[in-house]
Amino acid sequence: MAKDLSSWVIPVSVSPPSLKDNTADADRLTRALKANLGTDPFDLHIDLQTLQRLPDLLRKSNYSVRCTLVRDRHRWFLAGVHSVEEADVAVGLAVDLGTTKVVLRMVDLTTNRILAEQVFDNPQASVGADILTRVHYAGEGDGTQVLHDQIVEAINRQTEALCRSCQLIPDQIVLVAVAGNTTMTHLFLGLTPYWIIREPYIPVVNRPDLLRARDIGIRAGSGARVLVFPNIGSYFGGDVIAGILSSGLHTMEQTSILVDVGTNAEVVLGNRQWLIACAGAAGPALEGGVTQMGTTAGPGVIDRVHIDPDSQRIEIHTIDDEKPCGICGSGLIDLAAQMLTAGLVDIRGRFLADRRPDRFFQQDGIWHLVVLPPEDTADGQTIAISQADFDSLIRSKAAMFTILETIAATVGIHLREIERFLVAGTFGEFIQPESAITIGMLPDLPREKYRVLGNSSLEGATQVLTSPGTLDEIDTIRDRITYIELNVNQDFMQRFSAAKFLPHTDLSRFPSVAARLPGQ
Amino acid sequence: MAKDLSSWVIPVSVSPPSLKDNTADADRLTRALKANLGTDPFDLHIDLQTLQRLPDLLRKSNYSVRCTLVRDRHRWFLAGVHSVEEADVAVGLAVDLGTTKVVLRMVDLTTNRILAEQVFDNPQASVGADILTRVHYAGEGDGTQVLHDQIVEAINRQTEALCRSCQLIPDQIVLVAVAGNTTMTHLFLGLTPYWIIREPYIPVVNRPDLLRARDIGIRAGSGARVLVFPNIGSYFGGDVIAGILSSGLHTMEQTSILVDVGTNAEVVLGNRQWLIACAGAAGPALEGGVTQMGTTAGPGVIDRVHIDPDSQRIEIHTIDDEKPCGICGSGLIDLAAQMLTAGLVDIRGRFLADRRPDRFFQQDGIWHLVVLPPEDTADGQTIAISQADFDSLIRSKAAMFTILETIAATVGIHLREIERFLVAGTFGEFIQPESAITIGMLPDLPREKYRVLGNSSLEGATQVLTSPGTLDEIDTIRDRITYIELNVNQDFMQRFSAAKFLPHTDLSRFPSVAARLPGQ
Repeated sequence: MAKDLSSWVIPVSVSPPSLKDNTADADRLTRALKANLGTDPFDLHIDLQTLQRLPDLLRKSNYSVRCTLVRDRHRWFLAGVHSVEEADVAVGLAVDLGTTKVVLRMVDLTTNRILAEQVFDNPQASVGADILTRVHYAGEGDGTQVLHDQIVEAINRQTEALCRSCQLIPDQIVLVAVAGNTTMTHLFLGLTPYWIIREPYIPVVNRPDLLRARDIGIRAGSGARVLVFPNIGSYFGGDVIAGILSSGLHTMEQTSILVDVGTNAEVVLGNRQWLIACAGAAGPALEGGVTQMGTTAGPGVIDRVHIDPDSQRIEIHTIDDEKPCGICGSGLIDLAAQMLTAGLVDIRGRFLADRRPDRFFQQDGIWHLVVLPPEDTADGQTIAISQADFDSLIRSKAAMFTILETIAATVGIHLREIERFLVAGTFGEFIQPESAITIGMLPDLPREKYRVLGNSSLEGATQVLTSPGTLDEIDTIRDRITYIELNVNQDFMQRFSAAKFLPHTDLSRFPSVAARLPGQ
Repeated sequence: MAKDLSSWVIPVSVSPPSLKDNTADADRLTRALKANLGTDPFDLHIDLQTLQRLPDLLRKSNYSVRCTLVRDRHRWFLAGVHSVEEADVAVGLAVDLGTTKVVLRMVDLTTNRILAEQVFDNPQASVGADILTRVHYAGEGDGTQVLHDQIVEAINRQTEALCRSCQLIPDQIVLVAVAGNTTMTHLFLGLTPYWIIREPYIPVVNRPDLLRARDIGIRAGSGARVLVFPNIGSYFGGDVIAGILSSGLHTMEQTSILVDVGTNAEVVLGNRQWLIACAGAAGPALEGGVTQMGTTAGPGVIDRVHIDPDSQRIEIHTIDDEKPCGICGSGLIDLAAQMLTAGLVDIRGRFLADRRPDRFFQQDGIWHLVVLPPEDTADGQTIAISQADFDSLIRSKAAMFTILETIAATVGIHLREIERFLVAGTFGEFIQPESAITIGMLPDLPREKYRVLGNSSLEGATQVLTSPGTLDEIDTIRDRITYIELNVNQDFMQRFSAAKFLPHTDLSRFPSVAARLPGQ
């Protein structure tokens, strides 16, 4: 077996050729790497383009080079070979391929130092903000190609800018790690997502091999390789695998749970022994574009809400402290929790307009709560939440809780027994567990059991770059996951009905919330 | 372990997706192939381009497809996937990549039937007829790229014509097997041959991996793979490995020898247990462009010579029976043998001009033998051989014989003990063993031990296409060969001096020739 590598980049001295040792350059390099790694057998693949520049490079660097080696199962790939000069940095690129936002992070593969980061909007949003629209677009004519080109060109453009900011060139990139959901991953690879959304929901591929950057169209070094995080299925993507990886769920002694909430909720329950996963539509109310007034996170979007219990004045926080222009998922959950404890909504989720008539108004026969009056918003429009929005939020939170109960029941444990509760996903970055518990979206566990993970996709992708053992770890995670289909049966519907209350019909399950409810 | 495959093309039925079995298309195909092959673990690589067309293909073909799988060490590659329709033939292309001539052969991979063949001149000849000129050209500016483009474009053009002649398209080609010497192979791959001819004679690569046709620039199916026969070193190329393969030397019970004569002589001695090889400059007199009057084989070139023992009239045969325009290696050897037995040259190789003054003339103080007078030739020029040409031929034949003696001595056997004597190479196709023995180029063995192999490179390349086990066999051959450097030491020089006689100073080694010498 191979030594454990602490970095992808391996400095190696190749013995210079002589009449007594006149094997080919590639063989000489392979031999030196094999000795260095202590790996036998050692099946090393060197791309033709790398072979083409190898003789010159070896001679000019006096047979001392730094190689970036990546292993996929039993095969090693020479992703890059550089001279040992200090300036010749081998660079890795981590990509969090979100539906809305894409985050790039450049890492020096020798030192594991983060060099630069960049966030940009997924340009596919021009076709449609949500996944479904993009999938439909992809299915028409050359739609898949168009969406593929959009994302690849944007990544190339942004990467080039990142490189310039660090005085590097894209040629120095030798390894790229990409984490995204199944549809985003398919579009990135130019694979049709057509069958993903159609029963029986079939991706083209779940575990793409270690691909070549050039094959995808990614501008990078001639031998650069791209690791795309594998999917479990159409509704359980590589972004969640990246989340498991970076959270360490798969290494935990005691049973823990990871929840990734976006348009779908992906839930993984397990420990170092086993992992069980499911996914379900849970979050439509939590993402922009779905509810009438929901907005995706961005400058000026309300992400925190507090209602003063006495004055019932609504205090808000916006992203980047800009003038308010909308409210995102975490803001909505805060708002709902605060409305509940302030007595502006009952446990059935009905607006109590009569309690504070000055705060509510009716439009088309539907009650709305004024979050901010026109004079306090960026565009001079009232920011409000309607009863319909609120109902949608309740359905989402109920679905979320039901999924959690169901997956726990599947393995015969109670949510109370869960040691650690990890909240991941772009949405998870902003969520306040306290609020989510208050509305009964997440279980009423001691708060120290909760951990909000931040951008766990990006962290997982970064880990690929900084720790060579990660590729095996990803395969281990994938192989260990048992994916269960959520059967919407009678049990599920009963749990769902009970969970549609705030926080729940059975208040004994939410003792810390019950104590704070008005009138308890 | 995998089943032994009788063809690269495997028909396979993929189970259609359902809610109970909703894994990805690629996984479903891989699973079906794995079950079919009985291989576990089964590391199958599917190119991105193949993945891109897989969902449509599977559904249109109702989940019944024919796959072309190629294995390189432990990894399998999906080189092609076709619908099961009769018309959808998967095609292989065998390439004999000669310095002078290139031969293409197209094979139906399902039936192993040869579909078409094409011979054309290597377009790199426009740069230089011989290898050395091309290597020098490759070393200047973008010379390597130019020579690479020349050969790849010519192969593409000729392949397209071949395809048209069979009502096929290049997209149907899924496997290409290329056998050539080390320099031709390097130029085909766009690798610099610069270090091949410079001490200590280093190729860029000896065993290229199973490459993708698109990476080389070869027009073929999207997943098509190219097997380039591996070299042993700079002077022992894949063409000889192909020769060993097609001759079966590596499977023979009793020790046999394979000789491939071109500009260099490559010699392999061995049996199913061991193989020992060496190479040396032996043939400069035998190839066109080197001797003043030698010509490479082609229409009108004299390939057979007979001298009537009584009249001493020279009878000739030309290729394609066209009007004579030159003489090639096999013609020269015939001529030398016939001159010796007709008493026109002595055992030292000196022209006996006084025996038939009408047949000889002097020019610049050098004796020439008239092979054909001006009136009998295509261009009205005398075809003659000079004493200098003849001396050069003698040095070549002496080198050849010395190499044979040396390699046999290295393993402690006598040439007499050799069970089978295989003559390969373009030149080998035309050689008459009888004549080569008469001049002492090849040993005086019973004639039935000799076998002239024809185009063994092309046959070896074809075998790759028709027999899936061949890739392993090639690796086995390569691994089993012990390559020895020919030390031009005192022993070698003594053997060489003795071999410069016709047939040899020690006539007892050539009893069958001695009996036919004039005056014996």
